[in-house]
Order: sequence, then structure tokens, then C-alpha cells
Amino acid sequence: MQKRIRDYGLTIGNLTPGKKNAITDVEGVTVGHVTLSDGPVQTGVTAIIPHQDSLFQEKLTASSVVLNGFGKTMGTIQLNELGVLETPIILTNTLNVGTAADALIQSMLSNNPEIGRTTGTVNPVIGECNDMYLNDIRAQAVTKKHVWNALNTASDSFDEGSAGAGRGMVCYSLKGGIGTASRQMPLPHGTYTLGVLVLANFGRLSDLTIQGCPVGTELAEKLEKVEQQKDKGSIMIITATDLPVSDRQLNRILKRAATGLSRTGSTISHGSGDIVIGFSTVNRIPHKNSNQLATQQMIHEEEIDLPFRAMGEAVEEAVLNALITAESITGRGGHQRPALKDLIEEYDISFR
Amino acid sequence: MQKRIRDYGLTIGNLTPGKKNAITDVEGVTVGHVTLSDGPVQTGVTAIIPHQDSLFQEKLTASSVVLNGFGKTMGTIQLNELGVLETPIILTNTLNVGTAADALIQSMLSNNPEIGRTTGTVNPVIGECNDMYLNDIRAQAVTKKHVWNALNTASDSFDEGSAGAGRGMVCYSLKGGIGTASRQMPLPHGTYTLGVLVLANFGRLSDLTIQGCPVGTELAEKLEKVEQQKDKGSIMIITATDLPVSDRQLNRILKRAATGLSRTGSTISHGSGDIVIGFSTVNRIPHKNSNQLATQQMIHEEEIDLPFRAMGEAVEEAVLNALITAESITGRGGHQRPALKDLIEEYDISFR
Amino acid sequence: MQKRIRDYGLTIGNLTPGKKNAITDVEGVTVGHVTLSDGPVQTGVTAIIPHQDSLFQEKLTASSVVLNGFGKTMGTIQLNELGVLETPIILTNTLNVGTAADALIQSMLSNNPEIGRTTGTVNPVIGECNDMYLNDIRAQAVTKKHVWNALNTASDSFDEGSAGAGRGMVCYSLKGGIGTASRQMPLPHGTYTLGVLVLANFGRLSDLTIQGCPVGTELAEKLEKVEQQKDKGSIMIITATDLPVSDRQLNRILKRAATGLSRTGSTISHGSGDIVIGFSTVNRIPHKNSNQLATQQMIHEEEIDLPFRAMGEAVEEAVLNALITAESITGRGGHQRPALKDLIEEYDISFR
Amino acid sequence: MQKRIRDYGLTIGNLTPGKKNAITDVEGVTVGHVTLSDGPVQTGVTAIIPHQDSLFQEKLTASSVVLNGFGKTMGTIQLNELGVLETPIILTNTLNVGTAADALIQSMLSNNPEIGRTTGTVNPVIGECNDMYLNDIRAQAVTKKHVWNALNTASDSFDEGSAGAGRGMVCYSLKGGIGTASRQMPLPHGTYTLGVLVLANFGRLSDLTIQGCPVGTELAEKLEKVEQQKDKGSIMIITATDLPVSDRQLNRILKRAATGLSRTGSTISHGSGDIVIGFSTVNRIPHKNSNQLATQQMIHEEEIDLPFRAMGEAVEEAVLNALITAESITGRGGHQRPALKDLIEEYDISFR
Repeated sequence: MQKRIRDYGLTIGNLTPGKKNAITDVEGVTVGHVTLSDGPVQTGVTAIIPHQDSLFQEKLTASSVVLNGFGKTMGTIQLNELGVLETPIILTNTLNVGTAADALIQSMLSNNPEIGRTTGTVNPVIGECNDMYLNDIRAQAVTKKHVWNALNTASDSFDEGSAGAGRGMVCYSLKGGIGTASRQMPLPHGTYTLGVLVLANFGRLSDLTIQGCPVGTELAEKLEKVEQQKDKGSIMIITATDLPVSDRQLNRILKRAATGLSRTGSTISHGSGDIVIGFSTVNRIPHKNSNQLATQQMIHEEEIDLPFRAMGEAVEEAVLNALITAESITGRGGHQRPALKDLIEEYDISFR
Repeated sequence: MQKRIRDYGLTIGNLTPGKKNAITDVEGVTVGHVTLSDGPVQTGVTAIIPHQDSLFQEKLTASSVVLNGFGKTMGTIQLNELGVLETPIILTNTLNVGTAADALIQSMLSNNPEIGRTTGTVNPVIGECNDMYLNDIRAQAVTKKHVWNALNTASDSFDEGSAGAGRGMVCYSLKGGIGTASRQMPLPHGTYTLGVLVLANFGRLSDLTIQGCPVGTELAEKLEKVEQQKDKGSIMIITATDLPVSDRQLNRILKRAATGLSRTGSTISHGSGDIVIGFSTVNRIPHKNSNQLATQQMIHEEEIDLPFRAMGEAVEEAVLNALITAESITGRGGHQRPALKDLIEEYDISFR
Repeated sequence: MQKRIRDYGLTIGNLTPGKKNAITDVEGVTVGHVTLSDGPVQTGVTAIIPHQDSLFQEKLTASSVVLNGFGKTMGTIQLNELGVLETPIILTNTLNVGTAADALIQSMLSNNPEIGRTTGTVNPVIGECNDMYLNDIRAQAVTKKHVWNALNTASDSFDEGSAGAGRGMVCYSLKGGIGTASRQMPLPHGTYTLGVLVLANFGRLSDLTIQGCPVGTELAEKLEKVEQQKDKGSIMIITATDLPVSDRQLNRILKRAATGLSRTGSTISHGSGDIVIGFSTVNRIPHKNSNQLATQQMIHEEEIDLPFRAMGEAVEEAVLNALITAESITGRGGHQRPALKDLIEEYDISFR
Repeated sequence: MQKRIRDYGLTIGNLTPGKKNAITDVEGVTVGHVTLSDGPVQTGVTAIIPHQDSLFQEKLTASSVVLNGFGKTMGTIQLNELGVLETPIILTNTLNVGTAADALIQSMLSNNPEIGRTTGTVNPVIGECNDMYLNDIRAQAVTKKHVWNALNTASDSFDEGSAGAGRGMVCYSLKGGIGTASRQMPLPHGTYTLGVLVLANFGRLSDLTIQGCPVGTELAEKLEKVEQQKDKGSIMIITATDLPVSDRQLNRILKRAATGLSRTGSTISHGSGDIVIGFSTVNRIPHKNSNQLATQQMIHEEEIDLPFRAMGEAVEEAVLNALITAESITGRGGHQRPALKDLIEEYDISFR
């Protein structure tokens, strides 16, 4: 069991997390990792599967937001035009986006023999961060098989920190990677869940803020040895919810990722691809037109402040979980990034 | 009865128009004009009322598209954020947008005593074109009373051409103004209507194309006397439909205004505010939150090509109707713009 | 002299403010207030003048960002299409946007006799927040004369807090209003300044965070009498800089308003029109085409992290300055909002 | 020599084309094709190289527009955020986007050893259309070698019609593919060129319009045998210019693709990914920050109507060139699409 930010006595925000405090609290969502760790190769793949039936046949309401566009995410043009997601989401390193796209396409082709024959094509959604400091990214070590393995081994329980696509990621000049969190949203017509998974690879140490505490500044003074590189990172933020929302409403919710990010100290820096992709699992949109009007359920707009709050809190906590669960990694050229959990102990950092 | 483009034997596109071939074919929609014509003052107001109940209490799904943003339209920020329209739409000249906004605000205040007391404020939607060539626009001749009169006299039957806000408008260097058209959309679950009203004030003569014929070039050769000013115009395109669509779907439909515009010869020029505002009358969105989930009907995305086509055709025909119905006007400083209907006769122009 | 947040010993961020720590640190920028305070009328106007020559003849690079679009700001369509600002910016209450637009139009007409005659029209930029809790907003108390007075009395020194358009505003359930701050940006080719002016009218008390401290939660416990209304507010964020940037670069900088806002506790809530408008004073764009290519200076994109940081810090500090300088106001129906400075003393609140 | 639309006596628009009437009239631009034709495999690759030096080191001002987003184009998020293009543009079939991305990444890695080591990553730009009717798209026949060959064989002279990525494309139910055209733009400070290359794969026969003539309707009546499939196509529109423009100005120009498209009969249909990517070759933006301000040249906004017109005309003519140069192809499952040039002869179609 990984020790998470709440295990250190911290409570982020006011809302109650779901059972696992993870994106997989949203029913049907599973996550799979493949982690590559071999000397200079420190990278991997993380797959998020939004529901367990045929996504191509039963699409989900989806949207995406570009907080900062220094990134190579693929698939958002169609996702935003049509407001639907029709494939799992794959996260990996920047230079393996092509490979991941190809693998996801082939997986979809194999599960849907009608694609490219009696129906059109498919829109693969791939996100990425640049792990070049710890990983030999030029080696493009991820293969299609790795992507398929991540898809095939997805479950509702998964590791955080230096796992999957998070293997080589660096966040606030510390070891970063995968983090997750969730929030419950009690509304008059039901209690809903919003879950977030981040691939955290951004920020410089002196900016790191934990629940209002300038932990990063404190650490930066102590850790003169930690080179504070220019922020060339990124964050991918994947959001799942079982709240009934239209794609426009979902888009509004996703934009609130900025509030959570900012509270950890982010300035949403230039070199960072800060991209949010989200889906709601409630209204399934059939690929085939049945010649009938569709009926979609959605909340009244006045109820949206609660999901706004849930989004900010879940993003903030997911980033902190990525940082606190990550193991220190030594990778390409002997590069190394310390783990927050080790530094906290070593320097006896308290959170207030 | 004004003679419209179909009365000249022309059929635009393939789809069947509604009964009146007007925006008011969409049930509940009414239009009111106030026309000011007094020497150098040649301007007016046109009000479009989307339904006959309280729009503030029962809002409509809405969206807007900026084809070219050299324009001062007001109200689209909130309209796009929330996907709803909560007031009538007022069209007038550019320098009377403030007056129109103030008048519409006061009309809404008077009908909704809770605004600014127990509920928030209201989002007035005002569109405009610049009629400075024929109208003494610096005189700001439109008053709040004119706006209220346009609202109060709205009906399902209204004039085209040099009426209302169209009074001083110039289109393809000819007299322009108000035009309208509609299309029926037979789908498996019902036959729906899409209607368009344009305030046409754009284009230069030599570009005018009618059903593929370069009528403008032909006229430009004959009419050396007609000064072809630089295109400083604009077009406002108001779209109503009873098709069940989400705001995203509606937005996609509105974008197809560009196809109809282009077929009349427009290059969507720099100095033009080419702005589309649309609403669907089907799903009423209550102002008050009843603590229940809303249910919205929408078409399957595969059915959207028909409304795309309807939109293009209706815009094309509405522009031609504005041109062919307009009366020649002499206004500020003796400026004058000829009427297409007069030129057709005078120069014996045929449409193929 | 108003006591500002730094006078309480707080330092926001790492960058050095300009001389006045105000938007008027950017050379040429002036600000004027007209404040209305008469029983239930507690409202006003604030005018921001970007430079002291003819703005219509010498426009400035400009951009705007909608963080949340529940607002009625006017003028951003054209501002974004053309990337320029050609009028001062007027801030007032929501229901006086029409009046303010009309007044600004008339002011521009009077200074530019060619508008509507030999050249086109003008694009007035008006921002607003809803002050209905303290102000009888339905009275629409602002007149054109008030707007002109604000324009005519603008100077490089101006009040914060309950002044001008800030008179009736409420922020984090406390008295809000006008705040300002600035940051210097040392780059290899010169030291530049970025200044921010906010009209702060958003947030609920328990969310207020000051330099990481949950001051709002502490106060909310003590102040059970302070009704925490639903957040129906807004924030207008006006940004000036003398940094040479393209409109795209400026737009990226403006987006970072979200980071500063979030650090004060904002969730960028549904009912809030959170809108950022900015301009750079460096490259003046002539209204008239001289038939020559224009030459624009801009920073290398790699230098943009410093202005990103400056923007976040200035917004955060400007919001805090609005809160800490505001005087308690009793307005419409005896409604009252306490001043943060009074509460700090009364409850002996420390900031860490 | 392929017979182009002007060789049939047609003149599209009023502006004068460049010397070759091709995208390669813009100095430095080259185009390379690899064409795959083997039974059911009828597909290929087209590479557009914007200049002949290191694109990664000397980037170009760029922008993109999504006319309709049913497409899988890759790279536009970063291109729009930063306003630059740093790689060649690759066009291919939809299911080979991953392969093409991977190939382009590897080509960039090999030419720029610093990528992923001392500098960040690279943003590959890939466009696609779906050629599944004539091509066995599920076979994903394009390999990385094909992409490299297209890059390596690029020149200023290239085939239109069924060549390169155009091999399997269908346009207006006829054989489509690659088309190109250019326009000269005489301005007071110089004569500039705008060139367009399209990968045309959209539309249904009865909509095809050539210079205002309903050729498609006429053909559709005669060709009952030609199955008019549902429009599942797309069009990629690549635009090059040597006009000095900012990325915002370029974006405005690119939007006018809609006017040219519409004049050929397009309704910009649902199933179509209609995507425009453009670059200006004038202002080179260095990858490395030299710690100096950059100086960019741009036209006065009032001069932009000429490039708007050039864009519309070049797109219209490029689509017609794609149609008229294409050879009939028989591909997957014996599917066949007739060539317009053959039908014109067979049915003695005149263009007016």
C-alpha cells in the first residue's frame, strides 16, 4: 500500500472523497499501467478505460480543455466537435505518441471489424508528457505491445507515483508521475462522484505549495544540490464523473482544473502542455443512429458549483498524491530526482 | 405584398421552405420593426422574439458564431457560456447598441420584478450593422421608445428590405436590409423547421452572385455610376429552429451560415461583423432550479447534415430576399443606393 | 493614504512591484473614479485610459480571456478579432452597461469627428459586475455624465476599495471593490512592468485564503452573523503592460489570471463573470493605413514565464488590496458588508 | 503534363495565379508524394516542406482552423498556442496517422540531435483523410519508409489528382485527391503569393458546382450508376504564403477557406474533417532565445481583404484541380470512382 497525502494527516478541501479516493471510484472506470525500467529507459504507458462495454458502440459525453498548449495530445479536435469519447485514453511519453496512436487504432480495429468497412474510422485519444530528464526519450522505448498490455491489465486498483507513464516524470523538480483522487457530490437527486487521474510532470521546486505551505521554498533552500531546471514539463489531467452533464457543462467543470493546479503552486508555465480530458459515464451515445430522438439527462446549471469545487479539490489532491507516492528514480545519464516522501523524512518537513 | 426572390422564378437549394418562407415559420417566433425615415436619418430597430411566454423564466437553448468579428454585438459571452438565450434579440445601427441594451434591460426589469432583487441580472442580446452611408449614424436617432415599440408590435408577419434595422443598410453596393427564409427538415421522428432572418449590409457589387450567376459583375459594368465603396459592412444572421438540438449541435449548424453567404458572393471581408445567433425552441430551460435533473431531447449526430443544408440554403435565400425586396433609399448627404429590383428591370437582367 | 496588504507585512510572490504597485506604474495609464453613495444607491464608474494620445488613431495591442462567461462585458468580439483596443475601458454595474456604452460612444464621437463619416465606427469596451446586494441596481443610477466625469478626472493616482465601480461590490462575502498591483519584469533587453486593476465582486467567505492561510474559514466561524450568500459575483481584471508582445502572447499572459485568483480561494464559480482584458502600450497600431508594412516588437516565447508569474502575483495582490482597503458600506435595504480591515482588528486575525 | 481546370477554359476568380499556379509558387516550399497502388491498397503519403533550412531551428509563423472537426489531425494544439510550425506537414490516410507521426518524429530526431537531450521535444503535424472506399484502410499500408521517401523526394513540381495521399480519395462521389492553386497579391509594398494544396475527399455528387454551374446535378442524373454515398469524407487544406502576417492575421486568412469550399458546392458536412493549416515564410522564429527582442513584419489590417480573396479563390481552384486531374481508380473490393475528366468527355458536359 502506498502512503498517500491523507496518510500524512492532510485534508485537501472540504468535500468527501470516494471510497478509493481515485478515478476508479467512478463506476466502470479502470486503469492499467505498463512500466519500463531498464537503465536509461524509465518510461511507460497508462491506459484509462472509461467503461467496460464497447466504447466505440456506446460512446460517452466528453470534452477537453487546453490550459496551456505546449503539448502533443491527439484526438481532441474530434472529441470537442462531437462531444464524445469513443476509445480508451492512453498516456505515454511525448515521442511515443505515434506508437501509442497506432497501437490504440489496431486495438480498436480488432474489436470493431466494421471500422473502415461499413462504418467510418475511429478517433484515438493519446496524451503525453516529456520524460527526457530521467528517460532516454529518443529511444522511443514504448512498443505497441506495451500499450496493449496496459489496456489488457486495467483494473479498478492501480499504483500511483513512478508507475506506468509516470515512470520518468518530474514534478516541482522532484519525482512526479501518476496521482489520483476523487470527490463525492451530494445533490438533491443523488450523490455523484468525480475522479481525477494526473500525469504530473511540471513545476519548479520553489513554487511547490502544500495546503498553503511553501514547502517547495523550504526544500529549495535545503536542497541546493537539486538542480531546478527550467520548467519544460506538462500535466495531463483525466477526469471521470457519473454526473449527468452535457458536454458544455462538462467543459466548464474541466476548466476548474486550473484552480487545483494553482493551489499546488503552478504558474501554468510556457513549456508545459497542461491539458484536461474528461468524460461522463451517464449518457451513453450509440454509434448507430436508431432514427429516434436521444434523451440526455443533465443537471440544472445552478448546481454546477459543487462539481467545480470537486474538480479543483481532486486535481490538487491528485497532484500531491503523485508527488508523495513517487519513488526516487535514477535514469538516463545517472540523472536522479528525489522523492518527496524521502525529503520530508530527511529534513523533517511539517505541513504547517 | 413584397416580391421575393422565388417570385422571380428562382429556387435556392433543394429543400422545401416553410409556409411563409420566413423565420416566423418556427412556431412562437415573432418579429417587430420600427423604421425611422426623415431626411438624413434612415435607420431603425428590428426585434426578434423567440417565444411568447416569459423568456427569462423559460430560456431557450442558444449559441452564437463569429464568422468575422469586426462587430459590436453584445451578449454572446454569456450566451455561449450557458448555452441559453433569456431575452429577445434586438438589431439596430452600430452607434445605438448602448441605447438598445438599455431599453432591453428596462423592458426585462419591468416584466421581471425579481431581477436585481431576489435573482441575478439579465443578459441582453443586441446585434448591429453600420448604416453610416445612408444614415446619419452620429445622430444616434434610435431611442428606447423605438426599441420598446419594435418589441410591442412584433408579429409573425413582417416586412423585408428597407424596414426596421434594415432601413439604412447597403448590401453588395445596392440597397440591403432585412431578409428572411426558412427550410423544412423531414427526419424519421418528425418534420422540423429552421428559419433565418438576416440584416444584410455587406459585400461589393462585383461579387454578387445569384444562383451561380455573376449578376454583380454584369451590373457593375453597366452601373459605372454606382460607387463601389470598400466593404465596411456586416451581416447579422438570426436563426430559429424547432429541431431538438444541444447547444453544441446548434453551434455546428450555425457555422454553416458561411456556405450560404459564400454562395451569394461574400468573401467574409475584414470590415464586416459577420455574426450568427441562433436558438432552438424545443427544450425550455427553467430559470429556477427545481432540484431535479433536466431531460433534453436531441437528434442523433448522424442526422445533422440535413440542418446543415437547411442553414446554408436559408441564409443564401434570406440574403437574396433582403436585396430583392429593398426599396431604393436616399439618405444622408443625398447618398443613394439603388434597389436590385429596379436594376433588374432597367437593365433587363436575367438570372441565367 | 489607504493601508494596503503590504502594509500588513505580507509579501505576495517573489517579484518586485513597480513604484506605486498599481496599474498606473505602466507609463501613460490613468484611472478615474466616479462614486455614487446615496442611501440605497451605492455604485459608480471606473475608467481606465491606456495612453494619453488619441487611442482611436493609435490603437494598442490587446486581448481578452473569459475565465467564466456569466457576464455582460461588451467589446471583446472585435478586440479579439483585430487584436487591438481603440477606446478607454469603462467598468460599472451590470444594468448600466448600456448607459456606459452610450456615453463612451459619444465621447469617442466628440473626439473623433471622422467616425461615422469618413471612417467606420468604434468599438467601446465596457466591463461590469453585479452590485445588487448593496446597491439598488434596478435604479440604474449611473448616467452618461458620470461616465464622462470618470474619463475626465483620470490620473495616475486613484483610490482602491469602495471607490468608483467598486462602491457596491462584495468579495468573499466581505466588502470588495477596486484593487490594484504591479510587478517588474527584468529581462535581458530591459525591465518591463505589468499592472493589474481588479473590480472584485466574487467568492464566499469560507474560501478566502491569504498567502496560504485559511483566513476566510476562521472568520466564517467567528462571524456567524455574516450571511454567506450564493456566489453571484464576478471579477473584471484589467491588465496593462509595457512589455513588447503580440496579441497571442498577451492572451497567454492574461490566462494566468486564473493562478492568482485561485490562490485567494476562488473556485471561478458559476454565477461569476470572470473576465480579463489586457493591453500592451509598446506597439501603437495606426488607424490609418500608410501603405507600409508594420514592424512589431515581441519577446522570444521562452521569456514568457516571467510575465506569466507577474500576472498571477499581480492579480492575487490586487484582489487582496481590494479587500483590505474597502470600507464597510451600508446600502440598499440596510444591507451591509463588513470591511476586512475592521474584522482583522476586531478578531485579532494574524496571517500566519 | 496533367490537364488542369484552366486548360478547360475556366478562370476561377479575379486574381492572377503564380507561375505554376501551385503551392510551390511560394518560394522555398516543396512537395513530395509516395503513391501506393496494389490491388486493394490504394493510398499514399504527401509531404509539404515549408522551407529548405532547418525548420526546427527556424520556425515559421503558423495557424490552423477547424472548419469541421470530424478529423484526426495531429499537432494543432501546440501550433495554435505558440503560433509556429517546426516540422514538415505530412498527409496520409486516417489509420496511418500514428505511423506518420512516428516517422516524422524519427526524421526530426535524426536531423536534430539536441531534441530530447539539451532541448525539449518536437511537435509533428499530421493531417489525414479517410480513403476506405477505394483503399483497404484497415491494412494500414503506409510505413515509416514511405513517409521518409515522401520527405526526401519533395520538389517544387508535383502531381495532382490520384497521387500521394490523394491516391484513394473520393470527392463529390468522383475520384478526388491532391489539388493545388495559387494567387498573387499586389500590395503597395510588394507583390506576394498565397498557395494552397488540398487533399480533397468530401462532398456528394449532386452538390458539385463549377464556377456557378450545377455540374454535379447534371452528372448525377446521367450517372445513376454512381452510388452517392453518405459524405464521410474530409478535406485537408494546406496554405503557404510569403505575406508578412502575424499568426492572428494568418488565422483570419485561413478561415476564408470556407468561401472557396462553399463555391464548389460543399455544405461542410458532418462526417468531414475540414481542417486548414497555414504558414507564412517571411518571419523566421529562431528556436534559440538570443536574449533580444524579435521584430516581426506584418501588413496593416486594412490590407487583409486581398489575401482573404486570394484564399477563397485558391481553395476553390485547388479543389477543382484535384477533381479534374484525378484518374479513375479501381481499388478495394472492386470499388471504383470515375474521373471527372472522363465524364466530361463522355457526357459532353460544358461549364456554361
